[in-house]
Amino acid sequence: MNVSFFSDLLSSISERGRGLIGFGRGDEPGRASVADLVKLSHELISRRGEASGVALARIILDRYSSLPQKDRFAFLIHIAGDFGSDEAAIEHAIDAYRKTPSRAAAHALHDAAEPKSQELIRRLNLAAGGTLSLVRLREDLIDLFQTLRTERSDAAVAVESLDQDFVHLFSSWFNRGFLVLRRVDWTTPAHILEKIIRYEAVHEISDWDDLRRRIAPADRRCFAFFHPALVDEPLIFVEVALTTEIPDAIAPILTKERDPIPLKAATTATFYSISNCQRGLSGVSFGNFLIKQVVEDLCREIPNLKSFVTLSPVPGFAGWLAREIRSPEPTGIRPEDRELLQLTEEPEWFAEAAMAEAVRKPLLAAAAYYFLRAKTATGRPVDPVARFHLGNGARLERLNFLGDTSAKGLKQAHGLMVNYLYDLDTIEKHHEAYANLGVVTASSAVQKALKFEGPSRAVPAAG
Amino acid sequence: MNVSFFSDLLSSISERGRGLIGFGRGDEPGRASVADLVKLSHELISRRGEASGVALARIILDRYSSLPQKDRFAFLIHIAGDFGSDEAAIEHAIDAYRKTPSRAAAHALHDAAEPKSQELIRRLNLAAGGTLSLVRLREDLIDLFQTLRTERSDAAVAVESLDQDFVHLFSSWFNRGFLVLRRVDWTTPAHILEKIIRYEAVHEISDWDDLRRRIAPADRRCFAFFHPALVDEPLIFVEVALTTEIPDAIAPILTKERDPIPLKAATTATFYSISNCQRGLSGVSFGNFLIKQVVEDLCREIPNLKSFVTLSPVPGFAGWLAREIRSPEPTGIRPEDRELLQLTEEPEWFAEAAMAEAVRKPLLAAAAYYFLRAKTATGRPVDPVARFHLGNGARLERLNFLGDTSAKGLKQAHGLMVNYLYDLDTIEKHHEAYANLGVVTASSAVQKALKFEGPSRAVPAAG
Amino acid sequence: MNVSFFSDLLSSISERGRGLIGFGRGDEPGRASVADLVKLSHELISRRGEASGVALARIILDRYSSLPQKDRFAFLIHIAGDFGSDEAAIEHAIDAYRKTPSRAAAHALHDAAEPKSQELIRRLNLAAGGTLSLVRLREDLIDLFQTLRTERSDAAVAVESLDQDFVHLFSSWFNRGFLVLRRVDWTTPAHILEKIIRYEAVHEISDWDDLRRRIAPADRRCFAFFHPALVDEPLIFVEVALTTEIPDAIAPILTKERDPIPLKAATTATFYSISNCQRGLSGVSFGNFLIKQVVEDLCREIPNLKSFVTLSPVPGFAGWLAREIRSPEPTGIRPEDRELLQLTEEPEWFAEAAMAEAVRKPLLAAAAYYFLRAKTATGRPVDPVARFHLGNGARLERLNFLGDTSAKGLKQAHGLMVNYLYDLDTIEKHHEAYANLGVVTASSAVQKALKFEGPSRAVPAAG
Amino acid sequence: MNVSFFSDLLSSISERGRGLIGFGRGDEPGRASVADLVKLSHELISRRGEASGVALARIILDRYSSLPQKDRFAFLIHIAGDFGSDEAAIEHAIDAYRKTPSRAAAHALHDAAEPKSQELIRRLNLAAGGTLSLVRLREDLIDLFQTLRTERSDAAVAVESLDQDFVHLFSSWFNRGFLVLRRVDWTTPAHILEKIIRYEAVHEISDWDDLRRRIAPADRRCFAFFHPALVDEPLIFVEVALTTEIPDAIAPILTKERDPIPLKAATTATFYSISNCQRGLSGVSFGNFLIKQVVEDLCREIPNLKSFVTLSPVPGFAGWLAREIRSPEPTGIRPEDRELLQLTEEPEWFAEAAMAEAVRKPLLAAAAYYFLRAKTATGRPVDPVARFHLGNGARLERLNFLGDTSAKGLKQAHGLMVNYLYDLDTIEKHHEAYANLGVVTASSAVQKALKFEGPSRAVPAAG
Repeated sequence: MNVSFFSDLLSSISERGRGLIGFGRGDEPGRASVADLVKLSHELISRRGEASGVALARIILDRYSSLPQKDRFAFLIHIAGDFGSDEAAIEHAIDAYRKTPSRAAAHALHDAAEPKSQELIRRLNLAAGGTLSLVRLREDLIDLFQTLRTERSDAAVAVESLDQDFVHLFSSWFNRGFLVLRRVDWTTPAHILEKIIRYEAVHEISDWDDLRRRIAPADRRCFAFFHPALVDEPLIFVEVALTTEIPDAIAPILTKERDPIPLKAATTATFYSISNCQRGLSGVSFGNFLIKQVVEDLCREIPNLKSFVTLSPVPGFAGWLAREIRSPEPTGIRPEDRELLQLTEEPEWFAEAAMAEAVRKPLLAAAAYYFLRAKTATGRPVDPVARFHLGNGARLERLNFLGDTSAKGLKQAHGLMVNYLYDLDTIEKHHEAYANLGVVTASSAVQKALKFEGPSRAVPAAG
Repeated sequence: MNVSFFSDLLSSISERGRGLIGFGRGDEPGRASVADLVKLSHELISRRGEASGVALARIILDRYSSLPQKDRFAFLIHIAGDFGSDEAAIEHAIDAYRKTPSRAAAHALHDAAEPKSQELIRRLNLAAGGTLSLVRLREDLIDLFQTLRTERSDAAVAVESLDQDFVHLFSSWFNRGFLVLRRVDWTTPAHILEKIIRYEAVHEISDWDDLRRRIAPADRRCFAFFHPALVDEPLIFVEVALTTEIPDAIAPILTKERDPIPLKAATTATFYSISNCQRGLSGVSFGNFLIKQVVEDLCREIPNLKSFVTLSPVPGFAGWLAREIRSPEPTGIRPEDRELLQLTEEPEWFAEAAMAEAVRKPLLAAAAYYFLRAKTATGRPVDPVARFHLGNGARLERLNFLGDTSAKGLKQAHGLMVNYLYDLDTIEKHHEAYANLGVVTASSAVQKALKFEGPSRAVPAAG
Repeated sequence: MNVSFFSDLLSSISERGRGLIGFGRGDEPGRASVADLVKLSHELISRRGEASGVALARIILDRYSSLPQKDRFAFLIHIAGDFGSDEAAIEHAIDAYRKTPSRAAAHALHDAAEPKSQELIRRLNLAAGGTLSLVRLREDLIDLFQTLRTERSDAAVAVESLDQDFVHLFSSWFNRGFLVLRRVDWTTPAHILEKIIRYEAVHEISDWDDLRRRIAPADRRCFAFFHPALVDEPLIFVEVALTTEIPDAIAPILTKERDPIPLKAATTATFYSISNCQRGLSGVSFGNFLIKQVVEDLCREIPNLKSFVTLSPVPGFAGWLAREIRSPEPTGIRPEDRELLQLTEEPEWFAEAAMAEAVRKPLLAAAAYYFLRAKTATGRPVDPVARFHLGNGARLERLNFLGDTSAKGLKQAHGLMVNYLYDLDTIEKHHEAYANLGVVTASSAVQKALKFEGPSRAVPAAG
Repeated sequence: MNVSFFSDLLSSISERGRGLIGFGRGDEPGRASVADLVKLSHELISRRGEASGVALARIILDRYSSLPQKDRFAFLIHIAGDFGSDEAAIEHAIDAYRKTPSRAAAHALHDAAEPKSQELIRRLNLAAGGTLSLVRLREDLIDLFQTLRTERSDAAVAVESLDQDFVHLFSSWFNRGFLVLRRVDWTTPAHILEKIIRYEAVHEISDWDDLRRRIAPADRRCFAFFHPALVDEPLIFVEVALTTEIPDAIAPILTKERDPIPLKAATTATFYSISNCQRGLSGVSFGNFLIKQVVEDLCREIPNLKSFVTLSPVPGFAGWLAREIRSPEPTGIRPEDRELLQLTEEPEWFAEAAMAEAVRKPLLAAAAYYFLRAKTATGRPVDPVARFHLGNGARLERLNFLGDTSAKGLKQAHGLMVNYLYDLDTIEKHHEAYANLGVVTASSAVQKALKFEGPSRAVPAAG
């Protein structure tokens, strides 16, 4: 009942949302100059904004969105420049703090140093539908920052600082406590499903039939986080296959020809695709919470599940390997493997069984090195997907040779896929070992693939 | 459909909420010492919190709520003391800022000076039901601050600073853009209605029949703001009577014996009661937004409505008048009226028509002075309800002699009630005049009641 | 999602419903004469009804409901008289059937003999809200029949026949497959709860606090059947107490002072009140389905439940016993008990322990006879509640001396209450034994209470 | 709120529904013989059915649906044969009726002649999901009847009689008062939309993009009737285009390339496709109610709408015309037109402007005759779509030459489409004229197309 009460409750949001799109808007927003918008923005954080904030915010956001990109960029640069903090107030607060460095004085300093842009963003959010408009505006800001990033101009620095304001406020507003997990299935409204198709970033969804195969069968699941203020917009979603063992290839999961397994037979939940949906929310992380919540919920729904793993791409592997192969003194591959590994650059190399078999061992050895030894400048694994899952406390469970022979899979990783294992009991320990010491926890099988290269590279198993 | 999708969506919140209250919680939380909780709080904002934040936050909030008040206070004092900002980081940021006082440097200073308590609060909000727990915790903090406020101890100052962290974050989280307006009527779930009965702060709701009379008839409305993370908890609500004229007394509105008017006959919407519901959200204001939204919605629903007024109490009047009467040199009343005004201290003075009639003019004159001339130290009207409505841009429309002859109405204002008028076209102008210049906008009738006292006090009409 | 889709779906019903009550109805229905309504009814089942049935049906039902009772009765008598079947058609069908008594000919005869009133009722149901209007109309019909029942006039017979049409159609429309079971609790909308208060027929609900005690605690349940076309109207509901043993008195269940038991401790679900809500649906039985569905649902929700019993009143006992006591040759009581049993006619007899103790055995013996031996003319138990539960396949489990010492409980049964036990495994067997042979299945304890009176009355235990 | 209460309410239905499909069903239903099922059916309408009807009904329906078609047919033939009415009871009732031919006696005769199959169907409906199972079972019955229809065997007659039982009960259960109108749009759950794609019977929906173009744009509408007991299953739906004039061709409506018109510009609602969804409900008509309800709802939503028309196919025209052309003495075409009309049998005849222009007049003249003069044996128009709309009270508004040049449109009607006009003020009059006198109401333009053939055929305009 509770629920239904709130269903109604939420309806107002969407009605308001609808009002914005179609009828009842009254007059069309005329074109506004950038200068006008900046002026209105100043008013919004002034007294006038106290009286008429909701309407003013809506006007600014509407007119902003009707500007051409050039003008939107100009507006953002203005905001970044004009809506910093009050220098006199900072000076005053610094003096007070230096005199008495109390908590209260630090607090006053914190307040004084807050950029006015933060208040502006909060006030823009008064508008009906304001949150979504702000997420879209942030997309512009990211684009603008990309444009400016090469120059170290004042504008670039100010824009970066403005972007941090967004990250700060969005992190607070999209706090996990405000997110709602929803199963997405074949009874989900079409306008939501359409976005799932559009936002899928790992294994493209080719059409509605493909989507149906991923969410309708009894042994498939899809879950997404939503935020009540962003009606109809998933924030992140994960696709899950329930299987009888840890899968080593993606094709059997995505194939048209397969029979669903009975739920009672399922022992493994495989997360085979995780996609962030809102570019405007980049810098705010949901994936960690999503995976853990889904693991918890699946545990409760299907008590016979024993393993929770991913079937993940290895987006940086082919590039890294190419550099190793080209390198006169490679550290990640044995010189004697170079020739075999070069075979992977032949088209359709994997289709010939003998050739593929020859490549297998050296490639897996290189992969083991790639995951366990190769490091970024800051001492983290080279692979971004690895950093995500290891940072969540997962362990690298298995290397899957030719797990993905699609064009994309071959291009980015010569077909390699891997499984990360989420074991709720050890997540925290692994997370700490990784976060504090950079330890990459891996199964003994993965460790062994590394050892195959020679004793000199052996390491004590961390997992 | 949209709506219904989100109805489901919200259900997870409440299910999670339910899980917390009843079954399925697993083991009971044992008693925790204050020291334990402080330690867990440090862990929550550390790396461990990154891995296990949701669970950790839930544990802290659960155990906190099971502590006796003394221990809860001790915990809060610890948090206030321990979770300030990092002094070294502040010093470092000050130096950098002084070297290059850029937006970015100010931003870095802002970040460095942020009390760790803000991150702690955000992390506690990761827990399912965390927001409500934090609102309840803030109630303790307010109580604690009341206890400490007389002393200017370090602890008191730190607690006040911690309280500001809550106000800051709650203001952001309970931004109008996240609030949802809902009509409350006789089809509303009973557990919500029960809270309406409990939270009504102006004209007490005596029982369910009284409630029914206020929300069920076709010419009555009640609206409340809700927040999606605070399932079942209204934040603020307003009760509205649709009438054919501006009412001058509360009894005919609350009476058992009346026939509803047909909606087509309604010309006036009277807001006769506004109640804030959450003590833990004090300092975050909703009333302004609520009234304006309800005015908008009612305009749309019932196009024949012409006036939007309040029928408001005058909580400070009797106290102010008593001081005037006792004063050897009153400024708000004429000396010759003193005797008549003293009649209001007789029991049942108002019941005798002649006596009441004699009191009318002097009392209204005093009331006009009370609203238009009497000021606080900061130059604002003495009456808190007046400050609220005038600050919203309303105008003081009418003084109603003997508008509320209930015990409460007599005690606080000798029966006086007033109407404030919300005119959407002039709200902004009135708000600015009030905010910038302290101008109290009032109808000419109210102005005239003031003038009645003599030409020396006449003022140019502001409204 | 499904659900939410249909939530929306159902909304149209209620919106239409709302339309009927308040706005948007257009002109008020003028007064119509009975003759007009009869004429309109003829049109409704004619061709005109095919074109404009929905509107026509609405008009008839609206105007009907605005008539005074006298005219409503007159209308019903007209309908009963005018909308019988077509005699010529029957004759024709009889002839055809006699010629070839096939299934098809029987079908044709069935169709020919169908009273036109059935088609009229189906067409009236075309109107939005028609079903509820028809249920209300049937209430009039029942009242009318009560008025006429003494006379064996043609009108009375026709009205009875018309009433059978309603029972026939309502039985089909309110088929269990169309009913929806809903838990009623403290989150149920107030306008539904208000009806629960009003319709409770066994242990009166004194006010909202009393209601809250019955539906809000974790160890209490209330379930109701609803029909989608009768929005907001429960059809029947049952109140359930979860207990640790089979209760023997009602007061501890209804008391204000009690602590809920933890669900894990519950072993017994006690159905202590079942109320039909719609007088207009009398003759259509829901109770059997309700109890069995609730037993099933509770089994699933709370696996530790072992027993499902009622705590039931014995409405016919005091009357029967009075007759026995007065009888010169009683069969249900022993002559030597007569004096003791007469004590129950003293006021407050039960308050004195010794007196109550003296009455216990004879009273229980008489009760055992009342249940096991006393029979109606058709060989069924005298007690209507017993007939209901035994007919459902329950068994009489225990006689509870002084189980209900309220005024009502004393008046109707000298405080006696009983438990009936629902054991899903034996329901069918008991039902058949009762239905075919009139066997009253009872526990050995109840049998023994009977035997106590003397060997001559002993019977083989049926349970 | 009401709504949301019922949203929850309905959830039980679907949960129960879900239970049936997947988990929690307990043991798999073993294979049952036809004889077993017949036996169980007898039990269901016996005493055992009173005790355990819900479970028994579910078992019968489950096992039935798992039988191969041959056995399902055998079962249905048994039911048709065995569950007729009781001959002795009929004889008895006939005698009683002949003795006293009262309403009551006719009622008793009606009851006696009721085939037992009706009670069986009602009892099968006790099962959760029973209604849908019965609708599916009726599909078998229709198939069986098709198989048997050539023979006039006893079995065939009995099966037809059984089918009438279904039509009778379904007509009562799917009474318009129980139907719920729902808008179908892009926020509708995918599993519902999938059925819209599947059930579209007029202008095939090629894929999800096509569907989106029909339901998502602001100037398109789709409405469907649902029944609460048939969760997820539309019964009938209509697709509507909002336009600025009465459209004369289907292609511009279905095209990918078009800009939606603003709602304010819409003056006409065009119903361009109506599809029944449930073969098992054939014989129960919804279309009439659907169109009228949608007209009413659109009137309310978009007050500027002035005309409600269809854009309809003419499925029987090409066949009829071919017969005319072949006929030595055609009545519907002029002999001198024969040659020109034969051109329509050329492939792509319509693509050449001159040829098409030559065909226009004779073809429209023939069409006018087809609609206004050509009659079935029972004196109705030859065209089934015409019979439907004229029977609803619409008027034939316009003949559209080359309105549908798709393969289907050419094949069935040489591209001809027509508009029927729904004018709420004249619907009833037209319906009566059509129903009583067979009058085909048509616009003067259509009349004129007929007159063009020569004065001898002129008729007084009926519209």
